[in-house]
Amino acid sequence: MRDEFRTDLHIVSQLLVDMAEAVRAAMSKATKALLTADRTAAEAVIARDAEINLIHRQVEERVADLLARQAPVASDLRAVITALHIAADLERMGDLADHVAKTALRRHPSPAVPAELRGVFTEMAGVADRIARKIGAVLSKPDADLAAELESDDDAMDDLHRDLFAILLSDDWPYGVETGIDGALLGRFYERYADHAVNAGERVVYLVTGEFADEQSTAS
Amino acid sequence: MRDEFRTDLHIVSQLLVDMAEAVRAAMSKATKALLTADRTAAEAVIARDAEINLIHRQVEERVADLLARQAPVASDLRAVITALHIAADLERMGDLADHVAKTALRRHPSPAVPAELRGVFTEMAGVADRIARKIGAVLSKPDADLAAELESDDDAMDDLHRDLFAILLSDDWPYGVETGIDGALLGRFYERYADHAVNAGERVVYLVTGEFADEQSTAS
Repeated sequence: MRDEFRTDLHIVSQLLVDMAEAVRAAMSKATKALLTADRTAAEAVIARDAEINLIHRQVEERVADLLARQAPVASDLRAVITALHIAADLERMGDLADHVAKTALRRHPSPAVPAELRGVFTEMAGVADRIARKIGAVLSKPDADLAAELESDDDAMDDLHRDLFAILLSDDWPYGVETGIDGALLGRFYERYADHAVNAGERVVYLVTGEFADEQSTAS
Repeated sequence: MRDEFRTDLHIVSQLLVDMAEAVRAAMSKATKALLTADRTAAEAVIARDAEINLIHRQVEERVADLLARQAPVASDLRAVITALHIAADLERMGDLADHVAKTALRRHPSPAVPAELRGVFTEMAGVADRIARKIGAVLSKPDADLAAELESDDDAMDDLHRDLFAILLSDDWPYGVETGIDGALLGRFYERYADHAVNAGERVVYLVTGEFADEQSTAS
């Protein structure tokens, strides 16, 4: 029974690792679509999001099956419920990559991001990629120290978000309201992507230590 | 055992009804703060969000306790997992009300919303309130027909969201980029609030009928 539980939980964990890699690749490709007005890349991200949602559904079904057959308690139960939460965060990270891709597509063949914003979005995408890689690593091999690093990665994203708004709201912003709104919404997508990654990381910390690092808000 | 399960599930349901009423009241008060630059109302919403997060944590603890003690299977297990998902949606609705309140506070004592946008935000708030009331009603007494109505409420919110952007992007928008960005982000908060309410409603449909009404995206 115990071995069977471990096997089932391992399958769920593997699905989460697959999801983490998929949402990392999705945001990376969505950024390419955004910065190079690449229609094919944007469409690939949108198609891939449906697959990520399917893996999410598989996680939920596996977990329901595991709960019904094994009736885990204590730390085993905690691990299973934590997996559900992590899957939900990853699913939303995939949605956010999808939103970036759709913004790129809506402006195609024009670039959605003017030259003045390319630098900050390139940096935001870099932080997003680093965070998503760590989530994958932490899921493969739980590591509270690595998960805790996500907090400072999230701070880096918040700083970039502030930099973005400083550009959007500067007196010499030449692009008008529509491009400003696109920039603000895109900034929010990257920032939320990082927030969900940090939430997922804290769930892993909880799993390893039994304590929440912090009462992290799950702002939408 | 069966009676005990029903009692436990009823307590969880009651917490969800409390959450639904709390997030309804929060968005109503946040809208008041937004449209009347009411600092006290904004601060009350922000304080209340912490309480909503606490109820959410209570739901999670109750559910973990129930799973551990009762090891439900089949439709009982489905009900319990569904409760977890609904709680997550409600928690995020509370966060979105909190975001609206914080936007009001950031611009205080100026109003965050200029006269041209008051009408559309009043209507969005009306739809949000109607949706949140239905979620409360459906949770108190599961009703697939009422839950299905949420889809058309969500369509109404999407129409208002389009109306909002038509105003923001019209050639004679007089307020510049910052007010445009605030308007766009606020619009997104109301729209996301409705999306989460519809997700919660569909979970209730699933609970009642065993079928998802539709593969509803959970876009973030």
